[in-house]
Amino acid sequence: MPDQPSSKSHRAAPAHTDPGQVPLLGALSALADPVRLQLVRDLAGSEDWTRTCGSFDVPVGKAALSHHFSVLRGAGLVEQRDLGAKRVNRLRREEFEARFPGLLALLLRPDEV
Amino acid sequence: MPDQPSSKSHRAAPAHTDPGQVPLLGALSALADPVRLQLVRDLAGSEDWTRTCGSFDVPVGKAALSHHFSVLRGAGLVEQRDLGAKRVNRLRREEFEARFPGLLALLLRPDEV
Repeated sequence: MPDQPSSKSHRAAPAHTDPGQVPLLGALSALADPVRLQLVRDLAGSEDWTRTCGSFDVPVGKAALSHHFSVLRGAGLVEQRDLGAKRVNRLRREEFEARFPGLLALLLRPDEV
Repeated sequence: MPDQPSSKSHRAAPAHTDPGQVPLLGALSALADPVRLQLVRDLAGSEDWTRTCGSFDVPVGKAALSHHFSVLRGAGLVEQRDLGAKRVNRLRREEFEARFPGLLALLLRPDEV
Protein backbone atom coordinates (compact mmCIF):
# COMPACT_ATOMS: atom_id res chain seq x y z
CA MET A 1 0.00 0.00 0.00
CA PRO A 2 1.51 3.40 -0.90
CA ASP A 3 2.17 5.98 1.74
CA GLN A 4 -0.30 8.80 2.01
CA PRO A 5 1.92 11.66 3.12
CA SER A 6 -0.62 14.37 2.32
CA SER A 7 -3.31 13.04 4.62
CA LYS A 8 -3.34 12.56 8.36
CA SER A 9 -6.26 10.16 7.99
CA HIS A 10 -6.39 6.90 6.05
CA ARG A 11 -10.17 6.97 5.91
CA ALA A 12 -12.10 7.76 2.76
CA ALA A 13 -13.97 11.04 2.90
CA PRO A 14 -17.50 10.45 4.21
CA ALA A 15 -20.21 9.97 1.59
CA HIS A 16 -23.34 12.09 1.98
CA THR A 17 -26.88 11.90 0.70
CA ASP A 18 -28.62 15.01 -0.62
CA PRO A 19 -31.40 15.62 1.95
CA GLY A 20 -33.75 16.42 -0.93
CA GLN A 21 -33.38 12.82 -2.11
CA VAL A 22 -34.00 11.08 1.21
CA PRO A 23 -37.03 8.75 1.21
CA LEU A 24 -39.50 9.17 4.04
CA LEU A 25 -38.86 5.64 5.29
CA GLY A 26 -35.13 6.32 5.31
CA ALA A 27 -35.60 9.36 7.50
CA LEU A 28 -37.99 7.58 9.88
CA SER A 29 -35.71 4.54 10.14
CA ALA A 30 -32.71 6.73 10.84
CA LEU A 31 -34.53 8.53 13.64
CA ALA A 32 -36.20 5.46 15.17
CA ASP A 33 -33.13 4.57 17.20
CA PRO A 34 -32.24 5.88 20.66
CA VAL A 35 -28.53 6.36 19.94
CA ARG A 36 -29.11 8.23 16.68
CA LEU A 37 -31.82 10.35 18.27
CA GLN A 38 -29.35 11.27 21.02
CA LEU A 39 -26.68 12.17 18.44
CA VAL A 40 -29.14 14.41 16.59
CA ARG A 41 -30.24 16.11 19.81
CA ASP A 42 -26.67 16.64 20.97
CA LEU A 43 -25.74 18.11 17.58
CA ALA A 44 -28.78 20.37 17.72
CA GLY A 45 -27.40 21.83 20.93
CA SER A 46 -23.89 22.37 19.54
CA GLU A 47 -22.31 24.84 17.17
CA ASP A 48 -21.71 23.50 13.65
CA TRP A 49 -18.40 21.67 13.22
CA THR A 50 -17.54 21.76 16.90
CA ARG A 51 -18.37 18.13 17.72
CA THR A 52 -15.99 15.32 16.91
CA CYS A 53 -17.43 11.83 16.61
CA GLY A 54 -15.78 10.86 19.87
CA SER A 55 -17.36 13.71 21.81
CA PHE A 56 -20.82 12.16 22.20
CA ASP A 57 -21.82 10.41 25.39
CA VAL A 58 -23.58 7.40 23.85
CA PRO A 59 -23.29 3.79 25.09
CA VAL A 60 -21.85 2.20 21.93
CA GLY A 61 -18.42 1.23 20.67
CA LYS A 62 -16.46 2.88 17.90
CA ALA A 63 -17.65 0.59 15.08
CA ALA A 64 -21.30 0.93 16.06
CA LEU A 65 -20.92 4.70 16.36
CA SER A 66 -19.42 4.84 12.88
CA HIS A 67 -22.42 2.90 11.58
CA HIS A 68 -24.86 5.26 13.30
CA PHE A 69 -23.17 8.28 11.74
CA SER A 70 -23.29 6.57 8.35
CA VAL A 71 -27.05 6.12 8.73
CA LEU A 72 -27.47 9.75 9.77
CA ARG A 73 -25.48 10.92 6.73
CA GLY A 74 -27.59 8.66 4.51
CA ALA A 75 -30.76 10.21 5.90
CA GLY A 76 -29.56 13.74 5.16
CA LEU A 77 -29.39 14.58 8.86
CA VAL A 78 -25.68 15.00 9.46
CA GLU A 79 -22.79 16.43 7.47
CA GLN A 80 -19.24 15.40 8.30
CA ARG A 81 -15.80 16.69 7.44
CA ASP A 82 -12.38 15.31 8.16
CA LEU A 83 -10.07 17.79 9.82
CA GLY A 84 -6.74 16.01 10.01
CA ALA A 85 -7.31 12.94 12.13
CA LYS A 86 -10.62 14.21 13.50
CA ARG A 87 -14.04 13.97 11.92
CA VAL A 88 -16.34 16.85 12.82
CA ASN A 89 -20.08 17.13 12.45
CA ARG A 90 -22.96 19.45 11.91
CA LEU A 91 -26.71 18.92 11.93
CA ARG A 92 -28.25 19.71 8.50
CA ARG A 93 -31.08 21.71 10.06
CA GLU A 94 -32.13 23.82 7.09
CA GLU A 95 -31.82 21.08 4.44
CA PHE A 96 -33.64 18.48 6.52
CA GLU A 97 -36.32 20.99 7.48
CA ALA A 98 -36.87 21.79 3.79
CA ARG A 99 -37.32 18.08 3.03
CA PHE A 100 -39.46 17.15 6.06
CA PRO A 101 -40.97 20.35 7.49
CA GLY A 102 -41.56 20.18 11.22
CA LEU A 103 -40.01 16.77 11.82
CA LEU A 104 -36.80 18.00 13.42
CA ALA A 105 -38.80 20.33 15.66
CA LEU A 106 -40.81 17.35 16.94
CA LEU A 107 -37.63 15.48 17.83
CA LEU A 108 -36.16 18.43 19.65
CA ARG A 109 -39.10 19.31 21.84
CA PRO A 110 -37.73 19.61 25.36
CA ASP A 111 -40.45 17.49 26.96
CA GLU A 112 -39.90 14.43 24.73
CA VAL A 113 -38.09 11.47 26.24
CA MET B 1 -62.28 -23.79 28.76
CA PRO B 2 -65.84 -22.46 29.14
CA ASP B 3 -67.99 -21.82 26.12
CA GLN B 4 -68.33 -18.22 25.01
CA PRO B 5 -71.86 -18.13 23.64
CA SER B 6 -72.13 -14.35 23.68
CA SER B 7 -69.16 -13.78 21.38
CA LYS B 8 -68.61 -14.79 17.80
CA SER B 9 -64.87 -14.33 18.24
CA HIS B 10 -62.57 -16.22 20.61
CA ARG B 11 -59.99 -13.44 20.48
CA ALA B 12 -59.37 -11.12 23.37
CA ALA B 13 -60.45 -7.55 22.71
CA PRO B 14 -57.51 -5.56 21.29
CA ALA B 15 -55.44 -3.60 23.80
CA HIS B 16 -54.82 0.05 22.99
CA THR B 17 -52.32 2.65 24.10
CA ASP B 18 -53.44 6.18 24.91
CA PRO B 19 -51.85 8.29 22.16
CA GLY B 20 -50.95 10.90 24.76
CA GLN B 21 -48.67 8.33 26.42
CA VAL B 22 -46.80 7.18 23.30
CA PRO B 23 -43.03 7.79 23.44
CA LEU B 24 -41.48 9.53 20.44
CA LEU B 25 -39.29 6.51 19.68
CA GLY B 26 -42.35 4.27 19.77
CA ALA B 27 -44.11 6.40 17.20
CA LEU B 28 -41.06 6.63 14.94
CA SER B 29 -40.40 2.89 15.17
CA ALA B 30 -44.02 2.10 14.37
CA LEU B 31 -43.92 4.29 11.28
CA ALA B 32 -40.47 3.25 10.04
CA ASP B 33 -41.82 0.17 8.30
CA PRO B 34 -43.22 -0.02 4.77
CA VAL B 35 -46.14 -2.30 5.63
CA ARG B 36 -47.28 -0.22 8.60
CA LEU B 37 -46.86 2.99 6.61
CA GLN B 38 -49.08 1.49 3.92
CA LEU B 39 -51.70 0.48 6.50
CA VAL B 40 -51.74 4.02 7.93
CA ARG B 41 -52.06 5.56 4.48
CA ASP B 42 -54.83 3.19 3.45
CA LEU B 43 -56.70 3.93 6.67
CA ALA B 44 -56.26 7.65 6.09
CA GLY B 45 -58.09 7.23 2.79
CA SER B 46 -60.95 5.21 4.31
CA GLU B 47 -63.96 6.06 6.43
CA ASP B 48 -63.59 5.14 10.10
CA TRP B 49 -64.58 1.56 10.97
CA THR B 50 -65.04 0.53 7.33
CA ARG B 51 -61.79 -1.43 6.94
CA THR B 52 -61.42 -4.97 8.21
CA CYS B 53 -57.90 -6.25 8.87
CA GLY B 54 -58.16 -8.51 5.83
CA SER B 55 -59.04 -5.67 3.47
CA PHE B 56 -55.52 -4.25 3.10
CA ASP B 57 -53.39 -5.11 0.11
CA VAL B 58 -50.08 -5.68 1.89
CA PRO B 59 -47.60 -8.48 1.14
CA VAL B 60 -47.61 -10.20 4.52
CA GLY B 61 -49.32 -13.19 6.08
CA LYS B 62 -52.01 -13.16 8.73
CA ALA B 63 -49.69 -13.50 11.73
CA ALA B 64 -47.37 -10.73 10.53
CA LEU B 65 -50.35 -8.50 9.79
CA SER B 66 -51.67 -9.07 13.29
CA HIS B 67 -48.27 -8.04 14.67
CA HIS B 68 -48.22 -4.89 12.54
CA PHE B 69 -51.66 -3.87 13.81
CA SER B 70 -50.51 -4.52 17.37
CA VAL B 71 -47.56 -2.15 16.84
CA LEU B 72 -49.87 0.49 15.35
CA ARG B 73 -52.24 0.21 18.33
CA GLY B 74 -49.27 0.49 20.69
CA ALA B 75 -48.14 3.67 18.94
CA GLY B 76 -51.56 5.28 19.30
CA LEU B 77 -52.10 5.26 15.55
CA VAL B 78 -54.92 2.79 15.10
CA GLU B 79 -58.04 1.89 17.06
CA GLN B 80 -59.70 -1.48 16.55
CA ARG B 81 -63.05 -2.99 17.45
CA ASP B 82 -64.35 -6.51 17.07
CA LEU B 83 -67.65 -6.71 15.25
CA GLY B 84 -68.62 -10.35 15.46
CA ALA B 85 -65.89 -12.29 13.71
CA LYS B 86 -64.46 -9.19 12.03
CA ARG B 87 -62.03 -6.67 13.43
CA VAL B 88 -62.51 -3.16 12.05
CA ASN B 89 -60.15 -0.22 12.18
CA ARG B 90 -59.89 3.52 12.29
CA LEU B 91 -56.92 5.87 12.13
CA ARG B 92 -56.61 7.96 15.33
CA ARG B 93 -56.05 11.17 13.40
CA GLU B 94 -57.02 13.71 16.02
CA GLU B 95 -55.40 11.96 18.98
CA PHE B 96 -52.12 11.27 17.15
CA GLU B 97 -52.06 14.81 15.76
CA ALA B 98 -52.47 16.18 19.27
CA ARG B 99 -49.52 14.11 20.47
CA PHE B 100 -47.19 14.67 17.45
CA PRO B 101 -48.41 17.74 15.56
CA GLY B 102 -47.67 17.59 11.85
CA LEU B 103 -46.23 14.08 11.77
CA LEU B 104 -49.25 12.40 10.22
CA ALA B 105 -49.45 15.13 7.59
CA LEU B 106 -45.83 14.43 6.60
CA LEU B 107 -46.61 10.74 6.10
CA LEU B 108 -49.67 11.44 4.03
CA ARG B 109 -48.17 13.91 1.56
CA PRO B 110 -49.13 12.65 -1.87
CA ASP B 111 -45.65 13.00 -3.33
CA GLU B 112 -43.94 10.79 -0.73
CA VAL B 113 -42.91 7.29 -1.75
